[in-house]
Amino acid sequence: MKKYIAILGFGVVGSGCAEVLAQSKKLISDRLGFEIEPKYILDLRDFPDSPYADRIVHDYDIILSDPEVELVAEMMGGSHPALEFSLAAMKAKKSVVTSNKEVVATHGLELLECARENGVKYMFEASVGGGIPIIHTIDTSLVQNDITEIDGILNGTTNYILTRMNSAGVAFDDALSEAREKGYAEADPSADIDGIDACRKIAILAALAFGKLIEPEKIHTEGIRNLDSTDVKNAASAGYAIKLIGRTFSDNGRICAYVCPMLVPASDPLCTVNDVFNGIKVNGDAVGEVMLYGRGAGKMPTASAVVADIVNILSGSGVDYSWERAKDSDILGFEAVSSRHYIRVTGECGCLSGFEKIADGAYITSEMSEADAALLEKRLEESGVRVEARLRVLG
Amino acid sequence: MKKYIAILGFGVVGSGCAEVLAQSKKLISDRLGFEIEPKYILDLRDFPDSPYADRIVHDYDIILSDPEVELVAEMMGGSHPALEFSLAAMKAKKSVVTSNKEVVATHGLELLECARENGVKYMFEASVGGGIPIIHTIDTSLVQNDITEIDGILNGTTNYILTRMNSAGVAFDDALSEAREKGYAEADPSADIDGIDACRKIAILAALAFGKLIEPEKIHTEGIRNLDSTDVKNAASAGYAIKLIGRTFSDNGRICAYVCPMLVPASDPLCTVNDVFNGIKVNGDAVGEVMLYGRGAGKMPTASAVVADIVNILSGSGVDYSWERAKDSDILGFEAVSSRHYIRVTGECGCLSGFEKIADGAYITSEMSEADAALLEKRLEESGVRVEARLRVLG
Repeated sequence: MKKYIAILGFGVVGSGCAEVLAQSKKLISDRLGFEIEPKYILDLRDFPDSPYADRIVHDYDIILSDPEVELVAEMMGGSHPALEFSLAAMKAKKSVVTSNKEVVATHGLELLECARENGVKYMFEASVGGGIPIIHTIDTSLVQNDITEIDGILNGTTNYILTRMNSAGVAFDDALSEAREKGYAEADPSADIDGIDACRKIAILAALAFGKLIEPEKIHTEGIRNLDSTDVKNAASAGYAIKLIGRTFSDNGRICAYVCPMLVPASDPLCTVNDVFNGIKVNGDAVGEVMLYGRGAGKMPTASAVVADIVNILSGSGVDYSWERAKDSDILGFEAVSSRHYIRVTGECGCLSGFEKIADGAYITSEMSEADAALLEKRLEESGVRVEARLRVLG
Repeated sequence: MKKYIAILGFGVVGSGCAEVLAQSKKLISDRLGFEIEPKYILDLRDFPDSPYADRIVHDYDIILSDPEVELVAEMMGGSHPALEFSLAAMKAKKSVVTSNKEVVATHGLELLECARENGVKYMFEASVGGGIPIIHTIDTSLVQNDITEIDGILNGTTNYILTRMNSAGVAFDDALSEAREKGYAEADPSADIDGIDACRKIAILAALAFGKLIEPEKIHTEGIRNLDSTDVKNAASAGYAIKLIGRTFSDNGRICAYVCPMLVPASDPLCTVNDVFNGIKVNGDAVGEVMLYGRGAGKMPTASAVVADIVNILSGSGVDYSWERAKDSDILGFEAVSSRHYIRVTGECGCLSGFEKIADGAYITSEMSEADAALLEKRLEESGVRVEARLRVLG
């Protein structure tokens, strides 16, 4: 028996999805008792040399009106028309899977509600962590856990850059050029290096863990564009690696989520997640600390995750999510977050003498809130000391 | 609505299972639409002070004959009577979940066949990696991958001992005493330190990945009892940590599985899996390298995995496994395994001059088969050089 799907977007991930389906045809049919076949591939372009050339269509209505198509795999990226196409598919009683974190983080509530109303599934394993099955793990294996915190290295491009800065002492600009040469960074790398990509992913993880979706623009987000190699070196000398961390936790019923570069101690398993790899650490009340590690991006790993969702849905194991919109009163603001801070200054001030000095002019403070750290910065500036850098310490 | 289960064995994991079910009652009923209630707990002892005192029974027939009990969670350990009790439950049309690696690795085929014949499920997430959802991940998220290799740190006790030897230069005997004091090692630690526990777990993982169960006694198994701190120190000086590794891979349709202490390079994510944590690295053709990390033992993590299986089965997402017995012709013997070797000798011999010298008398060879390494050892002994240690290098 065959079950038919349609692929929207025949770019890197879309063509990877077709390849994974072809490669795993026997595995899937042995396991599930049916084959999964892409009947149509929607793209603006033609692909005359592709083995799928005869399945390329340019008119979405062909897909929507074909009752044989049970599921649509959206790998177009961006919010529009991904949102509209996904809604239309679900209204036509077709389940949707996606690798598109932007549309999930921004329009997740509307998409999930549409799925519920139409009795179909909307799943998005590939939107976070590429091939790492983090979403499925939270949904199923950790469902009996009260999740208290998730910390993740969620963006491969920035992790590659930080690994080069850390291990080879390369400056940010040079590391970014290397990442571009290797194809790890796009021509316009802003979404990666400014933390926007990680912000969308932590929004999705927070919604999974706590049932409430925080709008990405309400998530405090710092990237690594202004990170100085001096700070990377200072951190390393004290046993820390600087990583771009997406973090979410719940505190007395309120949810906090933010993205910023953090000093990660060597004892933390995230510290050795290097290069383009991602690592996502989940804390559950029963299971304790669990970390998943793997390729956070790339054609085949991401396609593998898309196909996992397709298989789950077509075999009847799809998941129904019911998220709410996080109200302002549900959110714990970044200014209330408490952590130790790394501070590097030029000049001297007695108010730093109580803190651990890890290098010339570089200190690690005791735990304090963002508000207090801002006050400390102000006091330093007032006494003529220039604050060159301030970063948070994880854990 | 309530669904009823029975717990067999009210020891550490069994009582943890009751606790996780109680703690997660609301999470589970919100998610699944029903509550899961342990109706009976079978144990030889009474527990007059337990909140579950009134559910303790000593006669298994009470459980078998109660049609309300849909599922039996076996946490007794050992092969007998766990095997007989599990078979009886399935013949009474009750699904079974277990944390018992011995019974799965030794009698898995019979148990799975019984499940199939009776139209019920037999699941065992907690038998490998404690709270780490490795089995579910291989089953579901990686199902569309052709798995090529699994390498794991599968035993927390030995990993604690090795971490102490590596980070603090403690000798094996002292590290074992520390592990005992902390409750990480049992009075008789043979199953852990001789690799028997890891052997059972790699047998289960190999069966999941390749569909064929190798009898544990056919798996080459070395423990860490004779590991010398000199070798741990030498390895560290060259950037390796020695870990007890369970490894399985397929090679031209044949399956290889073994357990031995190995030198793990710093670039491998398994290298920094320390203390009682476990790490399991899976290579799939599409997803690439994925690693799962977490607490490989302990009351609540293991109980969390047991409950995950219970939830999966009662919500209709249980998995049917169909393993075959691995014939001798399916198995690639250990003597054919090729790797680099760490060799430490007393004396000098020209036949070592081509190899990398990493410390006084300590070398890392080029890649060679076990058979060739044994020949090299023989040649060394014949030329009056004593081989003090030989270990394999991972990767």
